Amino acid sequence: MADINPITHMPMGYKTVGAHIGIKKSRSDLCLIVSDEPCVFAGLFTTNAVKAAPVVWDMALNSAGGAARAIAIVSGNANACTGDKGHKDNRLMAETLAELVGCRSREVLVSATGVIGKPLPMETVVSGIKQSYPKISGDSDAAMAAAEAIMTTDTFEKTIGFETVIGGRKVSFFGMAKGSGMIHPNMATMLAYILTDADITKPALTRALRESTDLSFNMISVDGDTSTNDSVIALANGMARNPRIEEGTKDYVAFTRALSWACVQLAKDVARDGEGATKFIEVYVDGAKTLSAARTLARSVVSSSLFKSAIYGADANWGRALCAMGYSGVQFSPERVFMEFESDAGNIRVMESGQPLEFDEALAKRVLSEKDIFVGIYVGDGPYSAMAWGCDLTHDYIKINAGYRS
Amino acid sequence: MADINPITHMPMGYKTVGAHIGIKKSRSDLCLIVSDEPCVFAGLFTTNAVKAAPVVWDMALNSAGGAARAIAIVSGNANACTGDKGHKDNRLMAETLAELVGCRSREVLVSATGVIGKPLPMETVVSGIKQSYPKISGDSDAAMAAAEAIMTTDTFEKTIGFETVIGGRKVSFFGMAKGSGMIHPNMATMLAYILTDADITKPALTRALRESTDLSFNMISVDGDTSTNDSVIALANGMARNPRIEEGTKDYVAFTRALSWACVQLAKDVARDGEGATKFIEVYVDGAKTLSAARTLARSVVSSSLFKSAIYGADANWGRALCAMGYSGVQFSPERVFMEFESDAGNIRVMESGQPLEFDEALAKRVLSEKDIFVGIYVGDGPYSAMAWGCDLTHDYIKINAGYRS
Repeated sequence: MADINPITHMPMGYKTVGAHIGIKKSRSDLCLIVSDEPCVFAGLFTTNAVKAAPVVWDMALNSAGGAARAIAIVSGNANACTGDKGHKDNRLMAETLAELVGCRSREVLVSATGVIGKPLPMETVVSGIKQSYPKISGDSDAAMAAAEAIMTTDTFEKTIGFETVIGGRKVSFFGMAKGSGMIHPNMATMLAYILTDADITKPALTRALRESTDLSFNMISVDGDTSTNDSVIALANGMARNPRIEEGTKDYVAFTRALSWACVQLAKDVARDGEGATKFIEVYVDGAKTLSAARTLARSVVSSSLFKSAIYGADANWGRALCAMGYSGVQFSPERVFMEFESDAGNIRVMESGQPLEFDEALAKRVLSEKDIFVGIYVGDGPYSAMAWGCDLTHDYIKINAGYRS
Repeated sequence: MADINPITHMPMGYKTVGAHIGIKKSRSDLCLIVSDEPCVFAGLFTTNAVKAAPVVWDMALNSAGGAARAIAIVSGNANACTGDKGHKDNRLMAETLAELVGCRSREVLVSATGVIGKPLPMETVVSGIKQSYPKISGDSDAAMAAAEAIMTTDTFEKTIGFETVIGGRKVSFFGMAKGSGMIHPNMATMLAYILTDADITKPALTRALRESTDLSFNMISVDGDTSTNDSVIALANGMARNPRIEEGTKDYVAFTRALSWACVQLAKDVARDGEGATKFIEVYVDGAKTLSAARTLARSVVSSSLFKSAIYGADANWGRALCAMGYSGVQFSPERVFMEFESDAGNIRVMESGQPLEFDEALAKRVLSEKDIFVGIYVGDGPYSAMAWGCDLTHDYIKINAGYRS
């Protein structure tokens, strides 16, 4: 967007650290985020009936409506399905960081990602937090280290930083995310954090985060089909000193636009880095009767394992996309569907008014051999459109997931 | 079951042929089934909004309520998403076989399975039907050839034959099925046919088929998430001369029990032969509040790609099973869950009252290295139970599906 400028520094007042403390064998596994001033925060959490201990903790803090000062995140262990001990361990993590920050434990949010059902090694975690905390810093290297420390099977850090103007003041955003297991959206253990120095009310931040998530993380992850740990958290510490943003104002619109942009960039990175992925797939559905229909159709196509396997093989098997639309539950008329595949190598139209088209198979192969594949689908039922993102399904997905605990 | 005796011959009055006519390169691709006398028939078809031409044809015949004399099945081409030509081609298939049998085209059911969106090679199909028809036979070799001719990526024929006594008369059943793409139930293109010489009314046969399918094919394939071609068809020609079976009678119960048994055996074979599968997984959920809850939980676990990958790797990652239960939409209390894995190599209890148990990892590896894995889950909410079947998710699944059209 024209009025958004990339930045490498953190928004005012935030410091982070990423470190290896010994939950994983060698890669970094602890991330701390601290704000100099108390933050308004908003969180969206997994709808899975089985919720990890940190999710239960964060949801309670979110409902209580208080401020947040810090987040402690471990990777390598999800602290999920860990019984009573899991909840005690989670509380101890919050208390340990709170003491260092000089705040209350209920001002510390907690996240975890990794293996389910193993108790956290608490001596390692507590001493790790204590040793890492003094290294927190607001510089961009620390931010990258923080983003690295939340990764599990991710192959690259997912971050976004930019500034924009809201209410006449410069406001900055930093976002980071991790995700994996993209074979089917319901498998993605996804964590995302957006830090901003904007001044905004909790209701406005909550609504903006929900709107942004619907356009981004929920287009790679189906509602209700989520892991035990999924969390999207936004912190706003108000240090930009803009006029406080309220719902339904011009500033709210500007803020939501910026937050959505951050979330979409992170979500696309998560999709791009799906486990074992070699290709990024963007599905655009236009001409749907309702927004919900457009969203469902786009997600159904991008989630189809058979379609994802076909894209991996650079096979223009558009029938699988149409089949996925068919079982999505959305009513549409197959005889009105247009479909095309596009990439840097060109464009092929494969279906027109529901009739399969003859196409150049050699060109199709070239188009689908690129890294970024665009699938355009027009259903001819109305004015609504939606975008969803995913990746191909490859041999390596199986390799990664067959022995994950080992 | 004690009162069911295996048979190798066909039920009275049925003849079949399986042949290679040239839709596929070398494997057999045409199956004809003919009954000497008109059959009452029942069919359950895909709920996908995109229905292949033969499914549209069969559904219309089913609604019309007439008799059936024959079924023509091609494999290698699904005749789906083939526009107007697809419907014309389908009608020509029915007409061609009807002329040979000496019946009306509306007494001929049609099925197809294979690639989506390619027109049928109709010269090949018509001359293939004409050349194959004279070879139809009631012997068991012909039945096996028929079962082979409906396969696509299947690695073995799925058949079941037995006789039982209903209403004081010996009644015989022959069933055959094909299935594939078991990575997720919504991908399974599944065809199943059950032929019986029982005398039964159409309402009774329809209800019995629905009850049987709910216990069998629907426990490997989620309702509403089906391919363009899925069909389960039962024919009953009445030649056993038993007193005609009506709904709600003792004979109806006996008939449904036999039909369910046939369907469960075929469904398990379809699950066992999932694309690239090396292991068969049976998930038993007990103690659910409702039958629907039990069914949904069992299917959610057996459909989890992450869980299936873990079983492939002989990794006792029970957290993934619990996670899949969590996102199934069923409300249950994780703290009441018991879970165990079992195979010929032994048994391991992994969770008790929601608390993870320490278990012998070496034994777990041995248990999960067997070919047949049983997963027992007790949720402690009520008296209902259900069984679902699936297979592991392997490297070979990707290999098979990445270049399916090529």
